[in-house]
Formats: sequence, structure tokens, C-alpha cells
Amino acid sequence: MLKVPDHQVAGHQAGNGHPGPLIDDSGRFYKPLQDDDRGAIEAAFYTSFSSNTRVPDHIRRFFPVFYGTKLLEASDGSGQWPHLVLEDAVSGLSHPSVMDVKIGSRTWYPEASEDYIQRCFMKDRKSSSLDLGFRISGLQLYESEESGLWKPDRKLVQHLSADEVRVVLKKFVSSNSPIDPNLNPDCSFASSVYGGSSGILAQLLELKSWFEDQTIYHLNSCSVLMVYDKKKELKGESSDAKVKLIDFAHVTEGNGIIDHNFVGGLCSLIKFISDILTSPDECTTKACLQNSDNNNEEILTGSNECTTKLSL
Amino acid sequence: MLKVPDHQVAGHQAGNGHPGPLIDDSGRFYKPLQDDDRGAIEAAFYTSFSSNTRVPDHIRRFFPVFYGTKLLEASDGSGQWPHLVLEDAVSGLSHPSVMDVKIGSRTWYPEASEDYIQRCFMKDRKSSSLDLGFRISGLQLYESEESGLWKPDRKLVQHLSADEVRVVLKKFVSSNSPIDPNLNPDCSFASSVYGGSSGILAQLLELKSWFEDQTIYHLNSCSVLMVYDKKKELKGESSDAKVKLIDFAHVTEGNGIIDHNFVGGLCSLIKFISDILTSPDECTTKACLQNSDNNNEEILTGSNECTTKLSL
Repeated sequence: MLKVPDHQVAGHQAGNGHPGPLIDDSGRFYKPLQDDDRGAIEAAFYTSFSSNTRVPDHIRRFFPVFYGTKLLEASDGSGQWPHLVLEDAVSGLSHPSVMDVKIGSRTWYPEASEDYIQRCFMKDRKSSSLDLGFRISGLQLYESEESGLWKPDRKLVQHLSADEVRVVLKKFVSSNSPIDPNLNPDCSFASSVYGGSSGILAQLLELKSWFEDQTIYHLNSCSVLMVYDKKKELKGESSDAKVKLIDFAHVTEGNGIIDHNFVGGLCSLIKFISDILTSPDECTTKACLQNSDNNNEEILTGSNECTTKLSL
Repeated sequence: MLKVPDHQVAGHQAGNGHPGPLIDDSGRFYKPLQDDDRGAIEAAFYTSFSSNTRVPDHIRRFFPVFYGTKLLEASDGSGQWPHLVLEDAVSGLSHPSVMDVKIGSRTWYPEASEDYIQRCFMKDRKSSSLDLGFRISGLQLYESEESGLWKPDRKLVQHLSADEVRVVLKKFVSSNSPIDPNLNPDCSFASSVYGGSSGILAQLLELKSWFEDQTIYHLNSCSVLMVYDKKKELKGESSDAKVKLIDFAHVTEGNGIIDHNFVGGLCSLIKFISDILTSPDECTTKACLQNSDNNNEEILTGSNECTTKLSL
């Protein structure tokens, strides 16, 4: 039985004549091929990557397993449509907290059309990408059995300032409510989710080492997905924190040059996360996150203690 | 006695009503303050940097020592002009080989004027910067007592492809003539200049570690200068290979974010240099460098052995 995934936080969803992704019970994610170059590029990337013997095994685990392509009834009932059959990154997690971070201060690339370059150029400048070297593309945090998931507006999370991103990265690993304006994120799970020898930071550093050396692919406009099972953390169990790279519709060949745009952005994300691990208690930020899509205002206060108030 | 430096390979030189830099016999370099924001920004950077206690000592040595500013008779005789008084990076080297590498795929920054952004944007795309994450801005190689220095046209070296940059980085550490079209660079000095615990690669890696962590400065449009005394190498003596960062007319505040544009570009340069150390004999390139400013043509041949011919 195929169904629409509950935990997709970014990327193309059904609508406007485009089918959305599907999942099944066996841990597979069916991504409809985009009907222009992007679909062909992404399929070609997965095919190349899955058979490329130059990719070491310890790196391969950061990419979704590729099971080929398959014609399926589209999620919007519009008929048969080719889908990439991939590993579902959140399969098996009962209450996943998920963050999608698009890496790179630049999402365009020289080979793209001038029109595409100009659109990305403006979007990178307006969003967090140019300043931070990455932007949060989507986010969901498990809150509690009663409140369910907190899923702020994707358009808003793409435009956060450095201080606001710091708050969100702390909320991602905190046990207390992300939406209560009077609570600072407690960073209870920082050491177990971000830290440790198999935590998210260690995984990002492993990826970084590879990207400093590999000159095969340039992963333009690709995302790092960070995932863990928050309910397990709340119960004191291991939460399987993991990193997956997703979205390869704009991959180009490396031609002997490292993906310096990806490396720079990844280093910036790593620095944000390291800082949280080094000083989780540092209160530079007051966490005022209200679960209101209508309140788009970012409230920045100038108090001595906690300087950032954030409304999403 | 002040005089015009022999070994400046990039940066502003005298002409068009602008005075050029001067040096003295005691190892000081006098850089005329540019008469717009750039002069003020560079002076402010040197003042801030030289007194910033957060900069560790082992990093400070990569920046020219700053001795303050001084009013001096301009090099073009146009009257008194304020100059930055700096350490001369090539002082004490009798026959320096020098390469100026502007770091970053992007030389502009959000705070700049729209006009400046557009000009840089086009230049970054046309030059090597966008592809490689850096561009060679200037170059001089000591050849021999008879032939003197080889100094290819600055406009040409900015536009080299990855393969051509690889040739130039090999020529930089080779004992044989850079201009003989029938000689492949022998990379004789690769291990002593690039390699070793105090070589250029080790220095670049030390800088990289700092840039992955420091969030004080963003060194937009700054250069890494690589310098060594080739005549000493030819005699088998230590050549004092060193790295200096120069050109801070576009520095901005880091505001808690690493300089991800610099980090990415620096990682790319490091990868090029590491590859030469790992496989110095790898002949992917045929080195056809002719010392002719009139021959701007890049000759790319498709032979099986050596694929790049390069005319500068």
C-alpha cells in the first residue's frame, strides 16, 4: 500500500498538476521524476552514484539507497508516472524530528540557464543562504502526544538570521516545547543527538572530509537532512540520529575540482552545531516561537540577556 | 630610501593618477591608502586585527605586520599621500618566486553597492573564481640569472582552467624553465616548497583550521600570497616558503558566521596543491608556456598523454 508521507518537510509536494512523493510500509520512498531536465539529472545521478566504485562505503550510507525507477499511479491520480524508488530516510522512526538544510551560499551553477541563475541569485541573496552558507528549507519537531508535530512555515524558515538559526538548531535538540514563548530551549538532547562518536556532528565531519577530497560530483542545491526520533530521546532511548543527503536534481560533474560551495556551507553548519555543543547553556537568544502562520514578524529585542525573539 | 618594489605581482600599481606602493631597505612595504571606502576599510582592518587578542599568535604570522600609517611623498610625485606601513612579504629574498591567489568563488559581499556586486559577479563568472573557488591574480617565477623573472600577463592568469592552474602550480615548484614549450614541469621543489611540516601546504592547513572556527572577519576579495626563494632552492638551501594573506580593502564583520566563501576556496586550493604532492609525476598536462604577452591563445590539445598546452 502506497501513501503520502507524513514527515516530508521540504521539496516538491503534490499540487499544480505535479504528483507528490509516496511511501510504502517496507521503508521505500517513491519520488516522482520531475518532468524536465531535473528528473533526468536526478535519475542519472542516482544511477551513477550507486554504481560508482570510487565512493567509499562509509560515505555511501549518507545517501538514500537507490532501488531503480518504477512507473506508478501518481499520488494525485493523474495517471502513470515514473518514480525514483529510494530508501525512506524517516522509515522506522515513530516520531521523527526532521530538519532539511539546503547547503551552499549559491544554489545555481555555471551550466544552468541565465534565467535560472538570476532566479536563484535573487533567492540566495534574500534568504539565509548568502549570509550563512546554507538555509533551513523545512523543519518539523515532535512536541508531545497531545500537541503532535510543530511544523513552521517553510517560507519563513528559509529567511532566518544567524541568531534565529541558532535558536532553531537548539530547539531541534530540546525537550521542552518549541512553541512556548516563555521557554528557552533546554538543549537536553544536544549531546546525544548532535554529539558523540556517532552523532550528527560526527557524521557531518565525516562528510566534510570526503567533500574536501572528492572531485566527482558538485551537489548544487542539495540538502542535508537531519533526523532523529524525539519520542525515543524523551524516553531515554537511543534515537538513531542520522544525516542523509537528498535532492540531486542539479548535480553537475566535478571535473577535478572539489565542490567548494558545498564545503563552505557545510563548514558553516558544522560551526553552528559545534557552538551549541561547546556552550549549550549560552543564552544569547530568547526563544519566542509561536505556532502561528499568520504572525510572520521577527521580533528582535535588545535585552542584555537574551537578544533574539523569534516568531514563526 | 624608498623605491618601487620589483616583486609585486598583483594589486594596484602606479598609474591613472593613483600612486603605487613603495618599499624601503628595512623590510617595510608602503601601500598608498585607496582614496575611497577601500582605503578606510583596509586601515581599519589592520588596526583592528593588530590589536585583536582573539587572534592566536600562530595565525598572526600569516598576516603582514602593521606599523601604522604614514604621510609620504607619493610614488608618482603627486604630493603627500597617506600610506599603510606594512611588513614586506618578499623582503630578504634575493630571487623570489611569487604567486597571488585571490580566494573565494565570490569576491562581492551583501553590504556592497549593487553596482559593485554586479561588476564582481560578472568578473567572478568570467574568470576562474566561480569554477575553482579562487583565481590566480598574479605570478612571477624566477627562471635563471640570465633570463631573470618570468611574469605572465595578469589578465591571462585570472582566466585559467583547472588543468591550466594545475600546470602553473607545478611550474611554480619546478627547476626547469617555465617558458620552454617542450619541457614538462619537473616539480623538483614540490616536496620542499609545498610539502613538509613547515611547507606551504602545512601553512594553508593551519589557516584553514582557523577559518573553520573564526567568525570575526570575512576577508572578501583577499589573496593568499605564496612566496619562496627559488635561487636558494636551486642551490639546495632552505627557501623559506611562506604564505601571507594580503588585501583587506573589502573586509566585513563576521557577525558570528564563519567566512564560508573563503573556507571553500581555500579548501579547493589545498586540494590542487595536495594532488601535486601526492602524484607529482602524473602527466595530465603538457606545459607549453611561451613568454609572449601578445599570444593570448590557450592551446588545448587532445593528445593521449598530456592534454593541456598553455600559452601565456
